[in-house]
Amino acid sequence: MSDRRTAILEAAATVIARRGVRGLRVEELAEEAGVSKALIYYHFEDRTGLLRRTLALVNNRAERYTAEQAAAGQPAAETPADPLRRLEQALLLELQDLPHVRENSTAWGELRASAVFDPELRGELALASVIWVREVADQLGEARPTAPESALTASAERLTALLEGLSARWLSGILPLTDARTRMREAIGVEVAHLAGLD
Amino acid sequence: MSDRRTAILEAAATVIARRGVRGLRVEELAEEAGVSKALIYYHFEDRTGLLRRTLALVNNRAERYTAEQAAAGQPAAETPADPLRRLEQALLLELQDLPHVRENSTAWGELRASAVFDPELRGELALASVIWVREVADQLGEARPTAPESALTASAERLTALLEGLSARWLSGILPLTDARTRMREAIGVEVAHLAGLD
Repeated sequence: MSDRRTAILEAAATVIARRGVRGLRVEELAEEAGVSKALIYYHFEDRTGLLRRTLALVNNRAERYTAEQAAAGQPAAETPADPLRRLEQALLLELQDLPHVRENSTAWGELRASAVFDPELRGELALASVIWVREVADQLGEARPTAPESALTASAERLTALLEGLSARWLSGILPLTDARTRMREAIGVEVAHLAGLD
Repeated sequence: MSDRRTAILEAAATVIARRGVRGLRVEELAEEAGVSKALIYYHFEDRTGLLRRTLALVNNRAERYTAEQAAAGQPAAETPADPLRRLEQALLLELQDLPHVRENSTAWGELRASAVFDPELRGELALASVIWVREVADQLGEARPTAPESALTASAERLTALLEGLSARWLSGILPLTDARTRMREAIGVEVAHLAGLD
């Protein structure tokens, strides 16, 4: 992807996190990206195309900062060998008071909320959600190899939906971050104990 | 409250569920409520006042349809004696494909999301959240009277945040309603088993 195309998508995520999907205007986007409006029209055929590519960027960034911290982003000694610790670490990365995590989570929430009114992003959102649930189910399966597949998927669906619910409360300033992190950590323990009971 | 004041707030919830908080315009609100713009300015001193009162209405409606169905809304025989069945019934009322449930949940989600950008509703949102968590913790406590208070509150915080996460996925069309209901029902069972283990 060209640098300027990427710059436009990065700027779109920033503006969506600031104004919401419905507040995204091409003037502000051009200013944020430091490009002309004409260049935006040149790179993206329409608003839907721009939103789809921005959603993909937001997803890739979330995977990247998860993968970075889990691997190279911190000393190797801190990457836990225990699969449950790795899962906990990956999920808690989304509950961090860092500007890029806030921006990415806010933009994701806004893109998802736009699908309540407008079905155009539903396919991509559903796919991203299925992939994420699959990854978490796989990590749970490493920790509990004898748990039934359907139970792993159900636990992963609950843990990811809970993370979205806690993240939304934190981002809107109605739940302290430490409480959100504690509830998430406890939930992993509760679900894993449940899966152990099914062995 | 006067009938016309109530009509304005009902219309505000409808318009917010349709356009989001940032899409709420006084022209559309007046048309939806069937009143003049001047009457809206007469009843509500400013936008913040209007949003606060609409949030209160949305909360009261959610309590009302929960209470109605749990009591008079259905035959008395169907109001479960078991405290866990009552809790399940109350939580699942928010996951129903009925126009007023969709509208109320969508409006609540939009009002909450507005607090990410704008702190003016945070106090009311945090209070509504605390009250809801308290109610669910009390119902869990009826089922598990020997569980520690802090564990009941933590479970209630997880169950309510999960419900918000599942509801957001359902409303945005990325999770079928039956799946959302199944995950919620299972989560109650998992949390209650966890609380039983703490006895």
